[in-house]
Amino acid sequence: MQELEYTASVERWGVFEAAVPGHSDGNPFTDYTITGVFTGKNETKTVDGFYDGDGVYRVRFMPSFEGEYRFVISGTFSERQYEGTFTATAPSEGNHGPVRVANTYHFAYEDGKPYFSVGTTCYVWTLQPMELQEQTLETLRNGPFNKIRFCIFPKHYDYNLNEPLTYPYEGTPMDSSVLTKENFWSYTGKPEGNHFDYKRFRPDHFRHLERRVRDLMALGIEADIIVMHPYDRWGFSEMDAECDDLYWNYVVARLSAFRNVWWSLANEYDILKKKTIADWERYASILCEKDVYGHLRSIHNCISFYDYSRPWVTHCSIQRTDVYKSAEFTDEWRARYRKPVVLDEIAYEGNIQHGWGSISGRELTRRFWEATCRGGYAGHGETYLSPDDVLWWSHGGVLHGECPPRLQFLRQILEETPGCGLAPMKAQWDEVAACVEESVGETAGYYLYYYGFHRPSFREYYFDDEHEYAAEVIDTWNMTITPAGTFRGKFRVDLPGREYMAVRIRRVG
Amino acid sequence: MQELEYTASVERWGVFEAAVPGHSDGNPFTDYTITGVFTGKNETKTVDGFYDGDGVYRVRFMPSFEGEYRFVISGTFSERQYEGTFTATAPSEGNHGPVRVANTYHFAYEDGKPYFSVGTTCYVWTLQPMELQEQTLETLRNGPFNKIRFCIFPKHYDYNLNEPLTYPYEGTPMDSSVLTKENFWSYTGKPEGNHFDYKRFRPDHFRHLERRVRDLMALGIEADIIVMHPYDRWGFSEMDAECDDLYWNYVVARLSAFRNVWWSLANEYDILKKKTIADWERYASILCEKDVYGHLRSIHNCISFYDYSRPWVTHCSIQRTDVYKSAEFTDEWRARYRKPVVLDEIAYEGNIQHGWGSISGRELTRRFWEATCRGGYAGHGETYLSPDDVLWWSHGGVLHGECPPRLQFLRQILEETPGCGLAPMKAQWDEVAACVEESVGETAGYYLYYYGFHRPSFREYYFDDEHEYAAEVIDTWNMTITPAGTFRGKFRVDLPGREYMAVRIRRVG
Repeated sequence: MQELEYTASVERWGVFEAAVPGHSDGNPFTDYTITGVFTGKNETKTVDGFYDGDGVYRVRFMPSFEGEYRFVISGTFSERQYEGTFTATAPSEGNHGPVRVANTYHFAYEDGKPYFSVGTTCYVWTLQPMELQEQTLETLRNGPFNKIRFCIFPKHYDYNLNEPLTYPYEGTPMDSSVLTKENFWSYTGKPEGNHFDYKRFRPDHFRHLERRVRDLMALGIEADIIVMHPYDRWGFSEMDAECDDLYWNYVVARLSAFRNVWWSLANEYDILKKKTIADWERYASILCEKDVYGHLRSIHNCISFYDYSRPWVTHCSIQRTDVYKSAEFTDEWRARYRKPVVLDEIAYEGNIQHGWGSISGRELTRRFWEATCRGGYAGHGETYLSPDDVLWWSHGGVLHGECPPRLQFLRQILEETPGCGLAPMKAQWDEVAACVEESVGETAGYYLYYYGFHRPSFREYYFDDEHEYAAEVIDTWNMTITPAGTFRGKFRVDLPGREYMAVRIRRVG
Repeated sequence: MQELEYTASVERWGVFEAAVPGHSDGNPFTDYTITGVFTGKNETKTVDGFYDGDGVYRVRFMPSFEGEYRFVISGTFSERQYEGTFTATAPSEGNHGPVRVANTYHFAYEDGKPYFSVGTTCYVWTLQPMELQEQTLETLRNGPFNKIRFCIFPKHYDYNLNEPLTYPYEGTPMDSSVLTKENFWSYTGKPEGNHFDYKRFRPDHFRHLERRVRDLMALGIEADIIVMHPYDRWGFSEMDAECDDLYWNYVVARLSAFRNVWWSLANEYDILKKKTIADWERYASILCEKDVYGHLRSIHNCISFYDYSRPWVTHCSIQRTDVYKSAEFTDEWRARYRKPVVLDEIAYEGNIQHGWGSISGRELTRRFWEATCRGGYAGHGETYLSPDDVLWWSHGGVLHGECPPRLQFLRQILEETPGCGLAPMKAQWDEVAACVEESVGETAGYYLYYYGFHRPSFREYYFDDEHEYAAEVIDTWNMTITPAGTFRGKFRVDLPGREYMAVRIRRVG
């Protein structure tokens, strides 16, 4: 290319992009800088651009306001400086901006619309055969999820021994034909046979990832991007600090202008044996400095929780550490960290040999309700054995489980709450109860009780003698909502004596 | 009566009884003493007798050996001393003696036969209408239980507002027609209107209880007798120390000669507000002194565990204190107390309004298996709503639940173990595994794995390369045992991908 090319008009919270020609000699990923300064009526922001191959550099920007913007692109990438203007227009329908923390424990889009997280996990769906990726998108389009966790790096793990579509770096991988279900554990980290240049990215790998982030954006789904992870046979989890920092800067430069990006510093950070807390804190500081939009940031544990009280952590991204209790701790974690609690891993619906991937749809749905009524959010995953080894949890594809329709139902219940999230409420020892976050301690007039595996034939309630309350019996498994009457004073609601019942009570007079 | 009457011949661990005439003036329960000294070839024991009304005193004795015994009965009850001899014969079939602690964490009858506790609870079944009691015995005869917990005192509680068949003391109770489901909580302790003499027992109350203890003995069922409890509207839970001690001595004198008696000092001792730890320790000291047979002794908690490490406590009798985890703590409690762990209350199968009485048969069965494979024992109860307010948990009657047949199945599995109990074994994080207690740390050749609510489609095992192992897949819910083959070295067992599966592996060569 010879000239500046750029988006003349972009909607608020959309992705502005400018492409400019620059030096391609030496190693353009390390040898040159490129920076864009964007100035609108309400903000001035400086962002890094990145080398996208073939002599082209790009700078992306997400305008947080409507109106005219001016930009200046400069750096050592070129002797020239580039300038221009563009217009940020009103957001289109479905564009509510990035998701932010709201009300301490919850989320809302930047335009104020509440965001009730119902996430799923398909770790490396963007690295599977293209047809499978299209199928995944179709499943997501028709499913309950508004967040999906996935990795930038390919994955080496049980059921994940195939080669990815592309690699993030120039080079060649080890010969994977030696791998079997039995021996793959001995090929983790950086075994012999890999020849990657950890300072030369493959732009096509990232372009494809970005295409998928855009696809998700179009579906209204947040992309919870896992930047590092330990399931590795290519050395990506064991690069030196210089290469790590290069990677983090490159990722942030490419991805932070997408409004639906969340940063997950790592999956199971604590089993990346070569990384220290100081490393994670350094990556976080890169993120805090270079992602000028302040996307949500967290890090996901295996055995040991990260210190979620660190200032850079916007929300907890927790894997349960007890086999039996998971979402039941949500309220304790809220109290401890005073941040949104997202239980991204509480075991998956499935039937594989591992305990984390063999619970029933009923149990997973129960955990979602526990998390919800304790003021937090849970995450889904599915691991049903399949002859083709395509498991939703890693590869995407289609869903086989019983949980997802119930999550759609739960999401509907959540979207009918009057506030932007639920808070745990003092309740009987044998129930979980929630009220609206904004009204904790007051008579909010909205209460959601959940009875889990208990099967009471009735329960009694009392709020006050003055107001009238309408009660509904919610069968969270059969997905029915049945009016139970309106009441004043102390009242009793009959229940069917089955598991997984909830009672929603709203003040009506 | 004018003369000594007594059993001329009694089997070993049977109940010898002598009746003698004595003073009936004043208060025979407090004013006179009676003692029996029993001497056989291997033992000499001194026991208290008791006043049984109508001028008759009785002395009971359980011979622990076969052969001739001589006895002398004396005291202030009479100017006369009574003597005699009797023969202790060989135990009849089904009489294995009292249950003792065996192998630190388990139980065995005195003759060495292992005792695998599968208990149930019918708190006041002996105080219900006679026809219902007969029905309870019939249910027990055909059921899986070898222990039942029940009270001496009547019970005042939800679903338990009726009058008992008899009272343990002379006097008259408050008018119970004022009681309703709503107001009964305000009539606990010692409300107005009760006129009992806490120093004058009604022998018919105790004679009937003893008849039921004998009935249970004939069925091979241990009587886990709850001596005190807080569910009271007659003042029995708030007597002074003198009356308490009189009661304890009377109970021990009457009941300790029955081989199938276990002592439960109290149910939910910690909500008997008028009693202190010093009181419980004093009752225990009476028991330790006066029960010369050393029957099993424990005490059952509500919120706060008793200190089960106290020397007089022979085994833990635990109520779970967490809503979600109960039997899952069995191995921790074993390690803490180094005594048998019996989880007498881990919530009941049923559908009443309370969380402790509304879990499914599946969940209760799962808790039994958790307790079993962690080296302990669980207890059953059933609380299904019934139009006649007859709930097994308090009243007995018939069973309505799905759990009991599965407990029969579990008991069969237990009775097929080679030792006298199971010990928790180091296992994967997502399974519970047991081996034979005597062989912890060795290659015992018997392993029981349990997968609970997980649904693995297969699992892999490895013990050694030398021996051959036979594996069976146990469906703990559908009560099937399916051979899975014999194996050497590392091997894989296929499972049906359903909940509640176990795998039993035995060394066969």
